[in-house]
This record gives sequence, C-alpha cells and structure tokens, in this order.
Amino acid sequence: MSQKTRSFLLVKRPRGMLSQEAFALNHSEISDPERGEVLVRAKYFSVDPYMRNRMNDVPSYVAPFELNKPLEGDAIGEILQSKSDEFIIGDLVSGVFPWQEYFVLPAKRIHKIDTDIAQDTYFLSVLGLTGLTAYFGMMDIGKPKHGESVVVSGAAGAVGLVAGQIARLKGCYVVGIAGGEHKTKYLSETAGFDAVIDYKNVANVRKPLRKILPDGVDIYFDNVGGEISDSIMYILRDYARIILSGQISQYNSGRLKTGPRLLAQMIVHRAKMQGFIVHDYRAEFAKAQKELAGWLKQGKIQQPENIIEGFEKLPDALLGLFSGENIGKQLVKV
Amino acid sequence: MSQKTRSFLLVKRPRGMLSQEAFALNHSEISDPERGEVLVRAKYFSVDPYMRNRMNDVPSYVAPFELNKPLEGDAIGEILQSKSDEFIIGDLVSGVFPWQEYFVLPAKRIHKIDTDIAQDTYFLSVLGLTGLTAYFGMMDIGKPKHGESVVVSGAAGAVGLVAGQIARLKGCYVVGIAGGEHKTKYLSETAGFDAVIDYKNVANVRKPLRKILPDGVDIYFDNVGGEISDSIMYILRDYARIILSGQISQYNSGRLKTGPRLLAQMIVHRAKMQGFIVHDYRAEFAKAQKELAGWLKQGKIQQPENIIEGFEKLPDALLGLFSGENIGKQLVKV
Repeated sequence: MSQKTRSFLLVKRPRGMLSQEAFALNHSEISDPERGEVLVRAKYFSVDPYMRNRMNDVPSYVAPFELNKPLEGDAIGEILQSKSDEFIIGDLVSGVFPWQEYFVLPAKRIHKIDTDIAQDTYFLSVLGLTGLTAYFGMMDIGKPKHGESVVVSGAAGAVGLVAGQIARLKGCYVVGIAGGEHKTKYLSETAGFDAVIDYKNVANVRKPLRKILPDGVDIYFDNVGGEISDSIMYILRDYARIILSGQISQYNSGRLKTGPRLLAQMIVHRAKMQGFIVHDYRAEFAKAQKELAGWLKQGKIQQPENIIEGFEKLPDALLGLFSGENIGKQLVKV
Repeated sequence: MSQKTRSFLLVKRPRGMLSQEAFALNHSEISDPERGEVLVRAKYFSVDPYMRNRMNDVPSYVAPFELNKPLEGDAIGEILQSKSDEFIIGDLVSGVFPWQEYFVLPAKRIHKIDTDIAQDTYFLSVLGLTGLTAYFGMMDIGKPKHGESVVVSGAAGAVGLVAGQIARLKGCYVVGIAGGEHKTKYLSETAGFDAVIDYKNVANVRKPLRKILPDGVDIYFDNVGGEISDSIMYILRDYARIILSGQISQYNSGRLKTGPRLLAQMIVHRAKMQGFIVHDYRAEFAKAQKELAGWLKQGKIQQPENIIEGFEKLPDALLGLFSGENIGKQLVKV
C-alpha cells in the first residue's frame, strides 16, 4: 500500500523579501514504513521566522533547506502505521517534520506528546520551540530578579509574548515593543505587560523608552535587532543582560544593513550579550515544559494561537509572519 | 610651608581627534596635608586610551574630567609628608592621582605598593590597571581552555600584550592583530604570539584571519572595535566569548561611526559578548597581582615599558597612544 500526499518544496531561494515564488505544491506517493520507522499524518504545522534563514544557502546551526525538496518545520501529527516498538497507531507526536500531509520518518526523530499536561497545539507554541526559546533565554541568560526592568522586542510574537510573561511572573517591570494598536492593546490589556510601545506609531522608540524607564534596562530580550535594539543600547543599566533570540528585522534584507557602533556602551555598563539556540537545552525540555504547563494552568501565562486551516496555506502563513497583524503563535491546521 | 607644583588642566573638551589644545600647564601652590591626608611626590604617570573618553562631558563609569581642573590618571609616587597612621615618609604608593608633580590626597585614596614582588613601574603596567584588565577579562570572561584559539586586537598595547600572553600560558593558540612591522615583529619574536596580522599591511584582516584560523575563533579579546571586530564576527566558533575591553578605534571619532549589523552571527554560534570594568574586581586585585608577578618571575610574561622623561611630556605621551609606534605600557617619569 502506498499513500498519496501533497508537499511543499523549496523551488527558488528568495533574495530579500520572501514571496510565493519560493514554493511549489507537489504531489507524490510515499512507501510504507520500514523497520524502525513510522507513518505520520500531519495535524498542525508551526511557521516561524527562523525558517526564512534556512532558505538561504548559508551554513548555520541547522543545514539550509535543500532546493526541490520539502521544507520542514516544527509540527505535530498522529501515528498511522508503526514499525517501531516505541509508538502505536493513534499516538500524538511532535518533531521537525517535512511540509507534507503524510510522511515516513525514523522513530528516533519523533517524540510522543503528553496531552495530560496541555492541549496538543500548545506543544507547538508555549510548550514548543518558541515557548522553550523564551523560557531558556529569559531564565538561563536573563536570570530576572524581582524588581528589575525588562524590555522585550517583537513582544507580540510567539517567543516575545512568553518571554515577557515569564519576566512578569518573576516580579519584573516589563515593557513590550510591538507594531500596531491591535498588538499593543493585547499586550497591555490581556497579557499584563506593564507598558507597551507601538514602534509604528513613533519616530524612534528611544524617547518613549527613556520616559517609561528613566533608570534604564536590566534585561533586553531581543527578537528583532536593528534600530529598536540600538535604542536599548543607550539606556542600559549596569550589569544589563541582552538576550539575542532573533533578529527578524534583518532576515529579509538582501544585503547586510548597517547601524551605529554602540558596543562601547556595553563596556561602560558591564553589559552581557548572548546568543543561544534552544536545541542546546534539549535535555531540559521536559522539565521546562512541566513548569510552563503549570504556569498556564495557574493562568500566569496566556498563549494566543492563530490557526489557519488548510495544508495549502503553509506559504501564506509563513509570509504573514513578516507583515502580519497576528498575535502569538501562528499555526496551520492540516 | 607650602609646596609649589606644576599641573596639567583640561582647558578644552576635544572634538574628534585629541590635540594639544585640550591641555594647559598650570603653576600653583598646595597646602600642607591635614589630618588623614598625605603629601605625595609623583614618580610615574600611566597614560591610557580610556582617558580620552573622560574628556567628553558624558556620564560613564567614572565621572568626566572637569574643565579647568587637573586631569588624573593611574600613577605611583612617594610619600613626602604624612598625617595618616597608614603611611610614613618614603612609602611608595599608587592610585588615581591628579596630573601634578606634588599633591595632597586623603590616605584612603592611595595604596602602598610592595616592591618585593616586582619593580615599582610594574605596578602601573602588568600589575597595574592595564595588566589587571587583561587578567580579569581573559580569566573571568574568556575562561581560556587548552587548545582553544584566541584573537587579541590592539595586541601590542598595554592590555592586549598581557591578555595574549595569559592565553598562551593557558595553552591557547594566540593570534595578535597590531599595526606596523615594529609591533608585529615584537609580538611574534619576543612575546611568543603564535601568529600575527599587521592590519596596516592588509586591506582587510578577514582573509588572513581565515587562513590562520580556518576553524574559527573561540575567544576574541577586543581592545579596538570597528572593522577589525567585524572580521571576527564572521569566524566565530560555537560558544565563542568576546571580551569587550576597549574600542579605541571609536574614541577619537567626533560622531558615531556605523558598521554592518552582524549580531545574527552571535545567535548562530551561541556567542557571548561581555563588557567589563576592571575596578569591579578590586577585591581580587592583590591575588591577581601575586599570580601575575609569579608569571613575570618565571619569564612567562614579558612587559615592555616605554618611559618618557619629564612631567611636561604628559600630553605628548597621551596623544602618542593614538598614533604611536610604542609597544606595551606608556609611562611618563616625573
């Protein structure tokens, strides 16, 4: 028996802003799983900004997507056939899966998810790679202390939203930077941020930041880079920590952008800046998921999810990250 | 009795490149020390790049120099009169002293130096603030491990020279970047650097760096900033540490310079960048000085000193740091 499937291939490496041209919908048949493999039906795909980087043919911490092969991303699915002792039909699983409706993978590349601790989609959002990125960045690099001031850029995104809420529940004063009234209203009214700046509504975030935080910033959780990050450099407090989680303002830039050289500020304020990759914390994922699930149950963390229906909408959903008005996690339901 | 003295005042805040215009030689008389104070005759002054920053009227970790008051810097001197129980006439002392031949200071602002562990001038170089900057930056932030690759910019300067030698004695492969044959020859032939790049002799240090370190850089001890630092960002190894010690390439720049935005590289390589101020380690100075003095005695560290004679040469000596051909520590003998 073979299974028909649709998949999305990367057919053209984008230059500058991502567009539909990069993708092609493909029809194929896949064979039955062999020993140690499973057949999975995809249920939800997560789309994330870092995927834009994998479309460039540049070595990085994950290999670039290959041309004319399916893209892949964080996803959950259901086991349809199993030739592995670890899984039985009906198991819900997560992993980095190809952009296909059905696929066969070695069992070691997938993980069972425990819907007793949270609903399945949460394993792609607050308990998935984005929530875990927020968790380990804030807890391990930021190390928030009660009463400290925290700024989160890209605060309405899947990572920023969780990062800001973790800082809040640790007793920090949290300022979110996001674009547009829809997002900023959500951050202050629902997610409980102490202050919010709509960067689309001001010439420069530096002035409102100084007003909100006259004593400066202890922790900056950076998802965007660029000019917003420049503004933070002028208001660092001594021993500030800058968590480099993403640089989304730079990802669709065909050429390298330039900006002011501000590192002397880091000497003056003995500041630390650190990049990190969530996969390095894999051994601690289960423990972190338990803690995050507890915060969810206590209502200390909100996790809005936007779910687009239809496998064929995957490229739209990814494009929407760079222009969209959505808050929190963007998912595609197959 | 009063003591006549010469002093150098800051009479004009420089814009851009520092020049003689900033300084004026002044003659005055100072009164006898009061209870808890001492009268000191200056013996040697250290001139250091960070002093350029204190000439700007910008708040920083040390207050800016005041206009029409004496500049001040790291120095050693001899006690001439003491109204303190802690010092007797003839004691050799160090501290941050005004640019005067004679001055009165509270005893708590000066420290006795122990010439049993090293000659007096070493308390302004390898055992002084510059040597200690190298020590704490390399040891506490860099944490060099045997076999790692280290790049030091400004490698022939007072800080860089000690930083590179410490990394070498910890078993690292150390590449120094400096300007001019005089400096690079010294670094490779006398100070034992494994490789040296003369940045004045190449269009861009990126290419020679890649050739010398095809596997990249584990530790970058940065004294200069600017384009040299940009080159390092392209060859970071995973978990690289960037020690922000100085940004001398930026200090004489009237306006803020710009450069490429390269922080995404720090995410890819999980790199850490940290600024620091040596004064934060004051409680550990004595222990570090003992260790450094031991390395000196064993011949594991060289400390060349350039000594200009004459109090009136202080401005020249400081200016020379930004253009000079000198290796190691620049001192002025009063």
